[in-house]
Amino acid sequence: MERRNNEYLQDFPILQTKMNGRPIVYLDNGATTQKPEAVIKAVADYCTYCNANPHRGAYELSVKATDIYETARIRTQQFIGAARPEEIIFTKNATEALNLVAYSYGRANIREGDEIVITISEHHSNIVPWQFVAKARGAVLKYIYLEEDGNLSAADIASKITEKTKIVAVTHVSNVLGLVNDVRAIADRAHAVGAVIIVDGSQSVPHIAVDVQAMDADFFAFSGHKMLSPMGIGVLYGKYDILDAMPPFLFGGDMIEYVGEQETTYAELPAKFEAGTQNVSGASGLIAAIDYLEKVGFDRIEAIERDLISYALPKLRELPFVELYGCDSKRDNKTGIITFNVKDIHPHDVASILDSYGVAIRAGHHCAQPLMRYLGQNATCRASFYLYNTHEDVDQFIDALKKVRGVLGYGD
Amino acid sequence: MERRNNEYLQDFPILQTKMNGRPIVYLDNGATTQKPEAVIKAVADYCTYCNANPHRGAYELSVKATDIYETARIRTQQFIGAARPEEIIFTKNATEALNLVAYSYGRANIREGDEIVITISEHHSNIVPWQFVAKARGAVLKYIYLEEDGNLSAADIASKITEKTKIVAVTHVSNVLGLVNDVRAIADRAHAVGAVIIVDGSQSVPHIAVDVQAMDADFFAFSGHKMLSPMGIGVLYGKYDILDAMPPFLFGGDMIEYVGEQETTYAELPAKFEAGTQNVSGASGLIAAIDYLEKVGFDRIEAIERDLISYALPKLRELPFVELYGCDSKRDNKTGIITFNVKDIHPHDVASILDSYGVAIRAGHHCAQPLMRYLGQNATCRASFYLYNTHEDVDQFIDALKKVRGVLGYGD
Repeated sequence: MERRNNEYLQDFPILQTKMNGRPIVYLDNGATTQKPEAVIKAVADYCTYCNANPHRGAYELSVKATDIYETARIRTQQFIGAARPEEIIFTKNATEALNLVAYSYGRANIREGDEIVITISEHHSNIVPWQFVAKARGAVLKYIYLEEDGNLSAADIASKITEKTKIVAVTHVSNVLGLVNDVRAIADRAHAVGAVIIVDGSQSVPHIAVDVQAMDADFFAFSGHKMLSPMGIGVLYGKYDILDAMPPFLFGGDMIEYVGEQETTYAELPAKFEAGTQNVSGASGLIAAIDYLEKVGFDRIEAIERDLISYALPKLRELPFVELYGCDSKRDNKTGIITFNVKDIHPHDVASILDSYGVAIRAGHHCAQPLMRYLGQNATCRASFYLYNTHEDVDQFIDALKKVRGVLGYGD
Repeated sequence: MERRNNEYLQDFPILQTKMNGRPIVYLDNGATTQKPEAVIKAVADYCTYCNANPHRGAYELSVKATDIYETARIRTQQFIGAARPEEIIFTKNATEALNLVAYSYGRANIREGDEIVITISEHHSNIVPWQFVAKARGAVLKYIYLEEDGNLSAADIASKITEKTKIVAVTHVSNVLGLVNDVRAIADRAHAVGAVIIVDGSQSVPHIAVDVQAMDADFFAFSGHKMLSPMGIGVLYGKYDILDAMPPFLFGGDMIEYVGEQETTYAELPAKFEAGTQNVSGASGLIAAIDYLEKVGFDRIEAIERDLISYALPKLRELPFVELYGCDSKRDNKTGIITFNVKDIHPHDVASILDSYGVAIRAGHHCAQPLMRYLGQNATCRASFYLYNTHEDVDQFIDALKKVRGVLGYGD
């Protein structure tokens, strides 16, 4: 058997290397993805041929850098279906994007007694900023809990989002359960009561086709590094009129129109939210990443992940010592994330033993402690797939998993 | 004559290329510097051999990524003479670092009637955040102005920093005038009245040896991309006890200890200030940049810039149509920045014409509008040198400058 039969795998240099003497099986794509040669080359080429500080530079290199940066904005706009390029704000990661909304929109629009509604399956980056806003403003923070199958409770969506609600913040796909939420339905409910909806797209944008206008998101945040792009660049999408009415967040160069000693007027969108020298090198990598993903196509990416899940889940269900979370959705909405525990064994031990067999998974609370407690777990293991993973990766993962209890002296 | 005789130049691939058909003379180092092959390779190697989300990953790649990230912290600590690695907080750029201090320290410690003292030669990134804090808190924002020679007014330092002063924010080197401020003296004055001092080191760290303990800075901010490193990584240094007492700024993953549904406790330093996935790729480039700079040595870097300034200034003074700013310091404190105007010609036209001769300079307000007004200018040209520049670069710059007025139809 040829070990690896995936047509994309050879584009990723790191997946040709070994980990602990075995070919790397990288199943931590929910944390960060690997980079194809085209992305690595785009970053190196930027530094070799185009590097300059963009904007206002009246020389060729700076014009080139500006072109790359604004091309990244237009490509991102097209990629997620935004109406205008000015609706794309570059940040360092999704966390900064969500904090920008919390600091700027949240603090400008939330008053005492207002309510902010989030879900129990949010990543900390979409929880802690709202705790901060709620506390600073005397607002109430409410949670939507889950159905038995891990999907958001429809009853909670209907009952918790009320006339008092001013902000609804919800992940598009849970980074633990891997289930796609019906964001459009939640957006409709939020808009019906006059609230805005903020969507954390960190786990959706890399894996499924996203259209921010179709889902009617007011804000949408994601990170480049989870979608083949370099670290250090993230995106905040916001509807133009909402962004335009918001006060700035970070203050400094490039986000101003006129600076007096005591007063400053601010630049138009998108510059208003992009203070200081931006990561143009990261933007050049982001362009290459979007090019790569669009060339593969999301039909194909979704099909690959479905196939891997369909191949892996029955094998996992055969193992009596494996407990699965979020794998019994009544809806057809599972992405390539499998979260599980091994009976009697701490997830960190599972991950360490898998590591010794060349398999990289994540163990811990996955920056989702409220969800962990809701599931009755302190921590879990998570295997998260991407377009370069193969059936052979799944086999190596399952084979290693079968050895975990034995290594630690337990029976099967 | 051999055009280029600098031993470092060949390490920078972009400087081997041409701009508008001429060998690039890159004199916009105050905006961003070019990257040596070693930095470009460090970033590519990171993506090829080590890429993973650091921290809490129980597999080899993630351990490698964590090692790189924490090595970058220790190398940065050593590079600027900080006492402890936990005093180094990574940000996306100097602007974010200064905003972190403004949002966290500023808003926690500034009360109505308190005074914040900055200087008229600050970059917007060290002005606008303080306008924001002053306005939010009802504090007073005061300016230290300049002596005739462009250095900070000693009288203003003595009179403006008073018992009411809670924050002093000052640039180490002006990005327009290129003069090194005696930060230690200002720090002593600030500390004598119980204020903290925040130093913008963006224009000093790349060019002169910096020791944050010797200057007794409470905070010190700079950007990687101005010191040979990739874009997308910056540094905030803060004294441990001060940082430790500050509330967090960005909220999300990795900066927490425990997240409940309504309450969160925060991680220890430095994690408390590093929410979300950090730019480890940028950190690997930062290590390579520090290695490069330390190998060259700041004695050598300072000597190169002094030599270039000494070579260029007399030639510029011979040109009757050139007006210089910040080039007559009574102290021996000039770095490699020459700011000037050409009589009758808008700086943007000067930069565009120089561009056509392969020479990259910056034209505009340099994100320092208050200083521009203080100098009586709307805009200026700025040529800023670095270790890879040569006498031949200066010659190409001066030769092109001599043609500017002719191109636009003016006499000499």
